[in-house]
Amino acid sequence: MSERNKRRTRGGGRAGAAERRGSAVIEQMPWNPPKMIDPPVEPLSPEGVEAIHDGAMRILEEIGIEFLNPEALEILREAGCTIDGENVRMGREFVMEMVAKAPSEFTITPRNPDRAITIGGNNLNFGNVSSPPNYWDMSIGTKVAGTREMCQNLLKLTQYFNCIHFAGGYPVEPVDIHASVRHLDVLFDKLTLTDKAMHAYSLGKERVEDVMEMVRIAGGHSHEDFDASPKMYTNINSTSPLKHDYPMMDGWMRMARRGQGLVVTPFTLAGAMAPVTMAGAVAQSLAEGLCAIVLAQYINPGVACAIGTFTSNVDMKSGAPAFGTPEYMRATQMTGQMARFYGLPLRSSGVCAANVPDGQAMWETSNSLWAAVQSGTNMVYHAAGWLEGGLIASPEKFIMDCEILQQIQRYMDPAITATGVDEIALEAIKSVGNDGHFFGIQHTQDRYTTAFYQPFLSDWKNYEGWEVAGGIWTPERAHLMFKEIIANFEAPPMDVSIREELEAFVAKRKEEGGAPTDF
Amino acid sequence: MSERNKRRTRGGGRAGAAERRGSAVIEQMPWNPPKMIDPPVEPLSPEGVEAIHDGAMRILEEIGIEFLNPEALEILREAGCTIDGENVRMGREFVMEMVAKAPSEFTITPRNPDRAITIGGNNLNFGNVSSPPNYWDMSIGTKVAGTREMCQNLLKLTQYFNCIHFAGGYPVEPVDIHASVRHLDVLFDKLTLTDKAMHAYSLGKERVEDVMEMVRIAGGHSHEDFDASPKMYTNINSTSPLKHDYPMMDGWMRMARRGQGLVVTPFTLAGAMAPVTMAGAVAQSLAEGLCAIVLAQYINPGVACAIGTFTSNVDMKSGAPAFGTPEYMRATQMTGQMARFYGLPLRSSGVCAANVPDGQAMWETSNSLWAAVQSGTNMVYHAAGWLEGGLIASPEKFIMDCEILQQIQRYMDPAITATGVDEIALEAIKSVGNDGHFFGIQHTQDRYTTAFYQPFLSDWKNYEGWEVAGGIWTPERAHLMFKEIIANFEAPPMDVSIREELEAFVAKRKEEGGAPTDF
Repeated sequence: MSERNKRRTRGGGRAGAAERRGSAVIEQMPWNPPKMIDPPVEPLSPEGVEAIHDGAMRILEEIGIEFLNPEALEILREAGCTIDGENVRMGREFVMEMVAKAPSEFTITPRNPDRAITIGGNNLNFGNVSSPPNYWDMSIGTKVAGTREMCQNLLKLTQYFNCIHFAGGYPVEPVDIHASVRHLDVLFDKLTLTDKAMHAYSLGKERVEDVMEMVRIAGGHSHEDFDASPKMYTNINSTSPLKHDYPMMDGWMRMARRGQGLVVTPFTLAGAMAPVTMAGAVAQSLAEGLCAIVLAQYINPGVACAIGTFTSNVDMKSGAPAFGTPEYMRATQMTGQMARFYGLPLRSSGVCAANVPDGQAMWETSNSLWAAVQSGTNMVYHAAGWLEGGLIASPEKFIMDCEILQQIQRYMDPAITATGVDEIALEAIKSVGNDGHFFGIQHTQDRYTTAFYQPFLSDWKNYEGWEVAGGIWTPERAHLMFKEIIANFEAPPMDVSIREELEAFVAKRKEEGGAPTDF
Repeated sequence: MSERNKRRTRGGGRAGAAERRGSAVIEQMPWNPPKMIDPPVEPLSPEGVEAIHDGAMRILEEIGIEFLNPEALEILREAGCTIDGENVRMGREFVMEMVAKAPSEFTITPRNPDRAITIGGNNLNFGNVSSPPNYWDMSIGTKVAGTREMCQNLLKLTQYFNCIHFAGGYPVEPVDIHASVRHLDVLFDKLTLTDKAMHAYSLGKERVEDVMEMVRIAGGHSHEDFDASPKMYTNINSTSPLKHDYPMMDGWMRMARRGQGLVVTPFTLAGAMAPVTMAGAVAQSLAEGLCAIVLAQYINPGVACAIGTFTSNVDMKSGAPAFGTPEYMRATQMTGQMARFYGLPLRSSGVCAANVPDGQAMWETSNSLWAAVQSGTNMVYHAAGWLEGGLIASPEKFIMDCEILQQIQRYMDPAITATGVDEIALEAIKSVGNDGHFFGIQHTQDRYTTAFYQPFLSDWKNYEGWEVAGGIWTPERAHLMFKEIIANFEAPPMDVSIREELEAFVAKRKEEGGAPTDF
């Protein structure tokens, strides 16, 4: 720890400096992950909770989940599960016993410990869009395949915005880098361009081990120190219905053994990979998620786990996935209720089906982000930058979403609803009386700089003022801001020796051929 | 009643026919004002409620409200209030005694009784944008003064969309009609183009009396029948801080005597016309609203009253009003809590500061509409079509907002979160097992037409499908839909003799010179 701290100190007061640089382009709120202060929206009765729990348990007991991973099968067999080929059935008592070992709250500490995030309780954390294969921005004007440069630019936004608390998966898939070494280059970019909590894709042994090693190096950790508490996390998806594939399980178990953060998020699209009824889709999602958590807890009791929800519905006319719908909102809230029932932290998402950053994109995203809040979500994936059901990443959408995220952060500030004598302000009201206004009075002067949310992208000018300023619609404004942020971006400090160690690791692993691509 | 019903019958099964016509352009959800099924968001502790109540009462007791209306002053003097010039102070016991006479729930029955709306309880009703002096649409491409034709077109949207439950004020001010007769022409248009609950501006004796008479004629009511229960309503604003002006009070008292619906909505912009602290702005708003309700209840005990909130904040850099902000959301929720404390129905709004129907417009509007839901609002004014802080009405924004309103309607459908055996769907999950999908199975087939929200404007195609279809952004899609709805619009049936009676009334009142314009 002392060596790590010494190296850090040499880097200089990083968070402060980064915030000052940030203010050069826009004024934004400081780093301060929100605490949710409202009770969650709970659409289920106690009987409803029990019915969904019973459904999830019966899926695990009577139908079973396929684990396409021999090692996982062996471990679950040893644990007493009923194995039939690749099908695994487990009793609810065992499930509940294992799930009870998972902590209800845990912390992920990235290379900059000031950017540690707490997952669980009433803590709300936002992450960037993850994994779209494509990219769209106003200057390109159409959907194109992602590149390393695009990915780097989105990572710069991830670092720049204080309301983005963790760096999820690749913000766009840089398909110009060969898949065998992509994880090395992108993780190098992620670790040097950002200092926020980091994710590894569970896509085969080499990728997971390489990423853990790079995160360890970047943090200046010993192996023991790295293993002692989560420094990063993985997110896996099941292959719905009712299946876990080989590489995801492999990464999951590797990360479990190393004590890193584990998030499992089934993608149960109601009417396609799950029942058309939301309760059924939620029950199936829980079954798929819980059995992975059972495996992790059996391997490493007490390891940090969160359960994710990605339950939405299809458009029954076309089969296309829909996001941010009323059904999506309710499924997210229901899953939140169930996560609290199981004592597990919750992950959900900021999502939309829209193809461009227009009005539809923002009402769908608003619906999904408020559903995240209402459900008591602790980790909001894809909170900024997502379009086309996750197939497109967009920097304009990223910046537009950040305006919503900042508003959620401010919304959770109890100062807004304070009712002390100073806030009731009877003397101020008396002093203004039946005429005049409050602009100039002392009560206003004392508070006006911090009284209200200050937007960085919203244009609050009247029409004429807006027109004189160019009549620029929101995505165009966001595009200009994007260019400016990238042009002025300065990476967070990193010790030269650490950077060199990372570079050497990447070079060595590239020489060795990176990761196999035939999984 | 029997005469009214006979005339109605001659008109033919109107609601059904209107819905069939509607489906010619888009498939929309049926008329079905939502019932709010979630508990409201309540940011105030019991002590906070008490503090704001005490603040409001002390404003009424110690500071007083100016009533710029001699008749109102006389009535309040008779009631025992302390009158000092135009300043009126009243004690909290009297206030609470009068407010207690107001019903917690009431019904407004328009000319089509199938379109009656209930204000209070968990009933959620949406109204069109009201009173912008200007208009914007995609084909004009800039802000222009409103005309009668624009107003008519927005009234057609008001009628067309089943998720719009009442016709608020003029959806745009038709400034091409002279102010002396504007109310006659627009009310004729409103009453013939729509059959939904109707509003009168409290802008002088003649306007209020004319509108009441026209609504009475349109409904085929006797005078006694009209007065027996609300057939329409008015909404007044105070002149913040702490003032009620002459014409508003005049209309308020006229409508109170005739037993019509009364809504009072102070516009307390924190930092400008109210304290910079939200609790103070809410307390002031309540004081301004409650004293009008006191007057109405003293005049006509038990008359239908609702309290409105329009508390938002200014941009402290420019003084410009902001809408849909975190402070706006919390003020709306706080006022909702206070409305329940006073046992009064609540009105709030769907608002934004954006100048065009872009992303900002939709996140601000989403914030305000969800705050309306969270606060337990019964009447959502400006729920569709509002831009530029209420200075612009836009048909594209109207249609975009209706997509959100329909989603809120669907969100409140308890079917989404049902957890019966059929919804948990264990047999369906069993039948699909670890492979395959749910598209074709019977459980899906039985439910797919009604399982999910079906949008009318959102485009859920993938990028390539969307591009092939023209790559049309949301406001352009809404514009095309607007043109099609107007081109295919058929007014709701109206008995010929009623229409003639309305025409004759308008002609007579125009001959008499309409209303004075020097108030």
